Amino acid sequence: MSHDQAVVAVRRGVRDALAGLDPRATGPVVVACSGGADSLALLAATVAEVARAGRAGAPTPRVVGATVDHGLQDGSAEHAARVVEQMATTGADETLTARVAVTTAGRGPEAAAREARYAVLEQVATSLDAAAVLLGHTLDDQAETVLLGLARGSGGRSVAGMRPGFGPFLRPLLDVRRAETLAYCAAEGLTVWDDPHNEDPRFTRVRVRRRVLPVLEEELGPGVAETLARTAGQLRADTEALDGWAEDALATASTGDGALDLAPLTALPAAVRTRVLRAAALRAGSPGAELFHVHVAALDRLVAGRLRGQVQLPGHLTGSLVAGTLRFTATVVPG
Amino acid sequence: MSHDQAVVAVRRGVRDALAGLDPRATGPVVVACSGGADSLALLAATVAEVARAGRAGAPTPRVVGATVDHGLQDGSAEHAARVVEQMATTGADETLTARVAVTTAGRGPEAAAREARYAVLEQVATSLDAAAVLLGHTLDDQAETVLLGLARGSGGRSVAGMRPGFGPFLRPLLDVRRAETLAYCAAEGLTVWDDPHNEDPRFTRVRVRRRVLPVLEEELGPGVAETLARTAGQLRADTEALDGWAEDALATASTGDGALDLAPLTALPAAVRTRVLRAAALRAGSPGAELFHVHVAALDRLVAGRLRGQVQLPGHLTGSLVAGTLRFTATVVPG
Repeated sequence: MSHDQAVVAVRRGVRDALAGLDPRATGPVVVACSGGADSLALLAATVAEVARAGRAGAPTPRVVGATVDHGLQDGSAEHAARVVEQMATTGADETLTARVAVTTAGRGPEAAAREARYAVLEQVATSLDAAAVLLGHTLDDQAETVLLGLARGSGGRSVAGMRPGFGPFLRPLLDVRRAETLAYCAAEGLTVWDDPHNEDPRFTRVRVRRRVLPVLEEELGPGVAETLARTAGQLRADTEALDGWAEDALATASTGDGALDLAPLTALPAAVRTRVLRAAALRAGSPGAELFHVHVAALDRLVAGRLRGQVQLPGHLTGSLVAGTLRFTATVVPG
Repeated sequence: MSHDQAVVAVRRGVRDALAGLDPRATGPVVVACSGGADSLALLAATVAEVARAGRAGAPTPRVVGATVDHGLQDGSAEHAARVVEQMATTGADETLTARVAVTTAGRGPEAAAREARYAVLEQVATSLDAAAVLLGHTLDDQAETVLLGLARGSGGRSVAGMRPGFGPFLRPLLDVRRAETLAYCAAEGLTVWDDPHNEDPRFTRVRVRRRVLPVLEEELGPGVAETLARTAGQLRADTEALDGWAEDALATASTGDGALDLAPLTALPAAVRTRVLRAAALRAGSPGAELFHVHVAALDRLVAGRLRGQVQLPGHLTGSLVAGTLRFTATVVPG
């Protein structure tokens, strides 16, 4: 690809995202930056697009580059300082380093670091009254996420990949290839710092990138990453429609004391009913991280009359049928 | 896996499928058989399960083994004769060979052969007044289908894999591993004939089986095939719920002369609205094989007021907004 095409692609992604911002917002646009090509291109393109909008007479937000120091490796503070230098070369109005303490209790180190990173970026957004926090995930990241979701097997939700936006976060580069962000940085003379984690094959995501996607491209034809990303978009729309339906159905079936009327439930298609049952169990206090498909499927069999008795749920809850309703009660432990 | 486990798994799949048959059906159960391990195990297990049901006093259907001669290769008639011999060793009440002429007009040879096969099996089912036609697709086939669907990128429908049942067809082995059908045949002393197509790397499905799935198992951990199959099941339920919703919404929005009222359309979530628009275009005569996502997306932008003018659709159709409705009319070619 030519550098020009790459610049156009990255800039267009950012422009569309900025155009979608609340016009009344006056706070800065925060760009999360790791020092890699994706987020560095995102920051530089944001600076350029804001300047372009300013020349066209629009009110322009300040652009804040923010890097997160997870403190997980030796030299992480030095790395953060280097990213701050990189960010400064893009012409960002302000740069900042947010430090987090990552606790891995009960999660993998990747998940823990990600959670801590989003939490601190959300704090930054709140404290700055930011219009948005931009994240540099690309189409390649999306394709990897779809494959990782497939491997987890948690259904449409995980295969639907990453959302283009949630809370203060936006992902302007989900239609942009990673190679385009690299070309963007080359075209703009930006020095990229590659996170060694991105090459460490102990991480599943790295193996997906380095080995699984290339084999898929080789055997199924080029364009697999785009196809995975497009499928993710369609499945996301499907998931949103079904989640909305389930939310309405949960409200309709709820009795007011946390139970569910069976009659409206049994009239629902299975995909909606299982969503309602899951949501009701969560509402009753069952912890999401432990509430699995097998629990929801058991509730579904109970509701359909294909299972007698009670269903034990995580969080010491019992689901049982009482007078035409499904009720969740604290599990009674004998003794 | 032990041979015993394999026999249990294959037999259970068949038993569950037979239990779901209409108890009033008196016609035979047809088992489609290629001579490979999957369908041969299916046929043998069907014979065994019907005999078991008979010993328990239930009325039992005849079991008919049917093989299809596509006439595509030299010696296909000899191969069919060999499969008939194999089928006879299973104790099937009857065996038959159905000959088809495959025309590949506008399709790949795999798709053409598949279509011809299903058509002739459906004819066989009708002429025998069959209770069902059983197909030998396994969990491994399902996982391959999901990956092929992902590569095509046609959204949830294709990622949802193969249906457990449609028309007269049932797939009792979708939860059974291919290795289990091989072990079943070994345990029962059945000679398996491997279709050379199953090893021909010119076929995408063969490359998925031989190269893509092993790499996924290696990099993402064992159990990927099961996970893909489970995801397919969940996405199938999602797709069915959305298709049902779209069917209702199409009926509600239809004006009676094939147009659609805009008001109910615009209130729908995107995933449902695009399904309604696709169904309406098909109903108006646009050919399904040429009606792509890009056409439906253009109709969606038209309906949402984000596109002015008209949308040209395959089949010489034009979609346009007229007095609060979306109408499909024959494209006027000047001259």
